Amino acid sequence: MARLVMKFGGTSVADLERIGNVARHVAREVRAGNEVAVVVSAMAGETDKLVQLCRAASVLHDAREYDTVVSAGEQVSAGLLAIVLQGMGVNARSWLGWQIAVSTDSAHGAARITDIRPDILLERLGQGQVAIIAGFQGLAPDNRITTLGRGGSDTSAVAVAAAIGAERCDIYTDVDGVYTTDPRIVPQAQRLAKVAFEEMLEMASLGSKVLQVRSVELAMVHGVRTFVRSSFDDPEAPQTGEGNQTVGTLICDEDEIVEKQLVTGIAYSKDEAKITLRRVEDKPGVAAAIFGPLADSGINVDMIVQNISEDGRATDITFTVTTADFERAMALIDELKSEVAMESVSGSSDVAKVSVIGIGMRSHAGVASQAFQALASRGINIQLITTSEIKISVLIDAAYTELAVRTLHSIYELDKT
Amino acid sequence: MARLVMKFGGTSVADLERIGNVARHVAREVRAGNEVAVVVSAMAGETDKLVQLCRAASVLHDAREYDTVVSAGEQVSAGLLAIVLQGMGVNARSWLGWQIAVSTDSAHGAARITDIRPDILLERLGQGQVAIIAGFQGLAPDNRITTLGRGGSDTSAVAVAAAIGAERCDIYTDVDGVYTTDPRIVPQAQRLAKVAFEEMLEMASLGSKVLQVRSVELAMVHGVRTFVRSSFDDPEAPQTGEGNQTVGTLICDEDEIVEKQLVTGIAYSKDEAKITLRRVEDKPGVAAAIFGPLADSGINVDMIVQNISEDGRATDITFTVTTADFERAMALIDELKSEVAMESVSGSSDVAKVSVIGIGMRSHAGVASQAFQALASRGINIQLITTSEIKISVLIDAAYTELAVRTLHSIYELDKT
Repeated sequence: MARLVMKFGGTSVADLERIGNVARHVAREVRAGNEVAVVVSAMAGETDKLVQLCRAASVLHDAREYDTVVSAGEQVSAGLLAIVLQGMGVNARSWLGWQIAVSTDSAHGAARITDIRPDILLERLGQGQVAIIAGFQGLAPDNRITTLGRGGSDTSAVAVAAAIGAERCDIYTDVDGVYTTDPRIVPQAQRLAKVAFEEMLEMASLGSKVLQVRSVELAMVHGVRTFVRSSFDDPEAPQTGEGNQTVGTLICDEDEIVEKQLVTGIAYSKDEAKITLRRVEDKPGVAAAIFGPLADSGINVDMIVQNISEDGRATDITFTVTTADFERAMALIDELKSEVAMESVSGSSDVAKVSVIGIGMRSHAGVASQAFQALASRGINIQLITTSEIKISVLIDAAYTELAVRTLHSIYELDKT
Repeated sequence: MARLVMKFGGTSVADLERIGNVARHVAREVRAGNEVAVVVSAMAGETDKLVQLCRAASVLHDAREYDTVVSAGEQVSAGLLAIVLQGMGVNARSWLGWQIAVSTDSAHGAARITDIRPDILLERLGQGQVAIIAGFQGLAPDNRITTLGRGGSDTSAVAVAAAIGAERCDIYTDVDGVYTTDPRIVPQAQRLAKVAFEEMLEMASLGSKVLQVRSVELAMVHGVRTFVRSSFDDPEAPQTGEGNQTVGTLICDEDEIVEKQLVTGIAYSKDEAKITLRRVEDKPGVAAAIFGPLADSGINVDMIVQNISEDGRATDITFTVTTADFERAMALIDELKSEVAMESVSGSSDVAKVSVIGIGMRSHAGVASQAFQALASRGINIQLITTSEIKISVLIDAAYTELAVRTLHSIYELDKT
């Protein structure tokens, strides 16, 4: 017997037929003697529809009211799954964010979970009742509904798993695991059996859409073993492998990974834009004067490169933001010109970031130079470089993205089974 | 300055354009210096869609989960109206049943409001903020969402008006008031300027769809003056008449009605079925043995007629139920045959109830006989009769419904302006 959290995304609960399939997955785990909490997203398309309504209602819509509206989708899918399970003879009850209570901060639209009271859930699980929790939603200190941002149901699931001390959090999604890279670009991409939390965090941050970044952070902090698998598997098929599952990827502590790879995966993101400030006056406080206002406006700056000035008076600064923030960032820098002297500002959203990720590279020098050589040999110019202990990222011309991904995937031998 | 409740039904908030129209009605009242609480239904069609999903999910769906699912509709419309009002510069905030809290009993699907805490609403109204309340929903003692049954938003509105001591509850709907009878049957039907609570209660009970029965009961008990008007009026048109409104019907205490009519309206309902038990053994306790089990099964029996038995041994009993309960009632009576001796059971849903309503008939004899004569002169056979102080109802062959309504509408001179 184990305590499990099972999370199902929007495509997995898109209609009643699929909800029936979800219910059979749940029933299987219940039959196996597990205590089961389920976290669901809204039926596919519902959240988009509600978001569109809010936007059409007013361009500058209030975030509190937005959250009230868009959280309705999960309320519906949670209730429907409870009804379907009950119809199959499985004892089940739905729970909304405010009912259990999933406490969050007040950052409406992108709230962070601060606490989940486990008492109601543990009591019901102990009685053999499946708890079906509406994902994506929580309760702010002022008693209003919050939402956790896109993909927030993953975070709900991991937070519930941490709160009730679940043995594992199973993320049922429309892919059957985490791959070495995007299989649409590299058909030979391999499904990873295990990925360390740190690696998954980098992959999620760098554009892999499998899990929301915050859910991975939370899983890492609380040590929640998270298993990504396909919701389209036959629910009645014999379950083998990790946690009696068929196929999927376990995201876990690196201690659980016996054979560590040098490089685990290649990630990429085309959602990048670069801004270059030429001949900025070179004096203390200039960086703060530029990046302070950007941060204050909620613009996330990712890569930053500042060259040493040749004459000691002026320097070039280049940084990247998401394409969504590009126009706003350019406008902000334009305003700053009156305070910070600079010769010119230029920007481009025609760039992509490609990253090599692997906890193995911590103890192996040469991974980075291997990447740079391989890209150079293909004629791909590197515009910016950033590195961390387990990651190397380069900014390149967007047109070369696929070529760069294929090249790197190949040189680290990720194509081999 | 007055404190007002404004209620808008599903067709009034069917899309963003209509929600904009609703917002202009609200803005007008705010500009006039009123404290305004608004109660909204779900966007037209949404509740039906959610009900269909529940039914398709499981025939015997759990009422708690049903309420969780179907209450999502009002959550969306309340949030959207708040967004639209804010976009127009009107300070507004949405409130769900559990947030304020609209306490109800545990009768999921048809819950009764037991209490509404006025403190949050009064505080916000006092700050000049419009309170937008999701209708149709409440909170059961066990912290689960309840719904109030079809048309429940009317009841929400009247209950809110009673709780905050509103001067008037304005029901904006798709008709411009309460008519002497259904204008689709009698084109000369007149809109009533005022109707007494008791009369409106009879009209609502007898099939007038303008207001939910329970909302009228509640308005009567708490003396909430309720004004029915059209939501399709030009929101910016000059407001004249009762409470600065253009046209509509005020439902109020009869003391407020100066010129009392003998008969106020003619109501009808085709949602009737009759069941006749022939030669039931005539002994004490027979009626209880028949109607007890029906009540226990939640079947509402309306008219009952028992003839005196000719031979002192057997009697005929006829009663009516709604068409929805007809099959169940017949099956139940069939089971009872083993306990209560009777010769035969027959039933028909091919009947209609037509009623004459008016508080004036209390003090005037002869209203009933006038009706019977008029129907007889048209060759309409009366199958059953029931009367109250302010109402006469007859059960007739359904084919004669329109003829009976027109005939009665005419003899009491309701056709005249």
